[in-house]
Amino acid sequence: MTSLIKYLNQAESIKVDDLLLGPIYGFSTDQLMELAGLAASCSVMKSYPPSRLANKKVLAICGPGNNGGDGLVAARHLVLFGYQVDVYYPKRTDKDLYKRLVLQAEKTGVGFIDHFPKETIKSQYGLVIDAIFGYSFKGDIRPPFKDIIADLTTSQVPIASIDIPSGWDIEKGNIHNTFEPDMLVSLTSPKLCSREYRGKHWLGGRFMPPQLCQEMELNLPTFPDCEQVVDISLPSSPTL
Amino acid sequence: MTSLIKYLNQAESIKVDDLLLGPIYGFSTDQLMELAGLAASCSVMKSYPPSRLANKKVLAICGPGNNGGDGLVAARHLVLFGYQVDVYYPKRTDKDLYKRLVLQAEKTGVGFIDHFPKETIKSQYGLVIDAIFGYSFKGDIRPPFKDIIADLTTSQVPIASIDIPSGWDIEKGNIHNTFEPDMLVSLTSPKLCSREYRGKHWLGGRFMPPQLCQEMELNLPTFPDCEQVVDISLPSSPTL
Repeated sequence: MTSLIKYLNQAESIKVDDLLLGPIYGFSTDQLMELAGLAASCSVMKSYPPSRLANKKVLAICGPGNNGGDGLVAARHLVLFGYQVDVYYPKRTDKDLYKRLVLQAEKTGVGFIDHFPKETIKSQYGLVIDAIFGYSFKGDIRPPFKDIIADLTTSQVPIASIDIPSGWDIEKGNIHNTFEPDMLVSLTSPKLCSREYRGKHWLGGRFMPPQLCQEMELNLPTFPDCEQVVDISLPSSPTL
Repeated sequence: MTSLIKYLNQAESIKVDDLLLGPIYGFSTDQLMELAGLAASCSVMKSYPPSRLANKKVLAICGPGNNGGDGLVAARHLVLFGYQVDVYYPKRTDKDLYKRLVLQAEKTGVGFIDHFPKETIKSQYGLVIDAIFGYSFKGDIRPPFKDIIADLTTSQVPIASIDIPSGWDIEKGNIHNTFEPDMLVSLTSPKLCSREYRGKHWLGGRFMPPQLCQEMELNLPTFPDCEQVVDISLPSSPTL
């Protein structure tokens, strides 16, 4: 039934989050980011159980906005799931929530590194979590993320993207020929760029009020029992 | 290995939460209540899948403090899991977070009722979630909760308690001979009152930083894969 899911354009994606966080539905960023990051970590656990990483670490690359915040939360939960996780977070956001997310991650055992490990990425890391840009990204990719995305494109390390493969156009997809992630976890609803995505595709964000889903005609799939993610891979996607 | 788990006294329970929410670990109540309520809802899903309730509803009774907040979060997630849920919340807390939790629950499809359904509880509800009092409860039980606990004690509806069976002494247990819940979900660590508890016992709160666990010598069990709860029932407990 995944063919019925609505793939959101950028304006619709912004509208969903604005509604969730506004006075009608009353959620806080703290709450939804916690559930979004937890969903991202669950999708990683299902696609790349620790045994698959052969003692290599996970590298989460976090951008300056909410997508980076989701990455910080996911990194923390992944440590609690038994992974060794480093975070590269070159443009830190000067907001209380983000400072607390860094502190919580540090205190839970996430390592923070101060440079992109270009030379050693393949030997040190079994998986990269791309939490650089989310659905609100527009315009040119600025340093240092331009080089990081170019490096990731040639790195040969599997990449799991949160919500949007960074570097892609939210609606048109991979128009700059940057990396195709092996796994994608879309949050709340998949975005237009992922409509023909052939990798492993999870949907997370099991917090959508039914009334909002109806209003936006989202046609979300049913999540299994108490899982935080549901598989929405296209039928032709490879097994991960 | 559950025999090694530390059962916390009241002062230790307060200390754990104070540390988590203080400047050292930097969590917010929004975050931890979301994860605690989610864990409570997962434990209900595992012990009482919707098919067991035979089309009856779940009634969550929420107290005025954080335990009631956990109940509001759990009620919302349970609706998303497919349950019909009513909340009775007679002493509403005049704080922004709690008002938002009520709004979020209402918008997700939780029903709010304005009186305790003493006469119809057994015909309408297949499960009561006891989110009345938590680990910080002390002193006498005041109206309307004194009567509610007495009614629950004779109601014959299965009860799932969040963190503490309401009416119990946090350390000494069921000294007033009130109800014994069929299920208990302890949060962060079980409390002393549950040391000899023979019902189904889950541990939730998969957010404890390893450093804090070591400092408090909690000896928490390992949670399975990406689950939010782990079964810590005593070996002689009945299967639920």
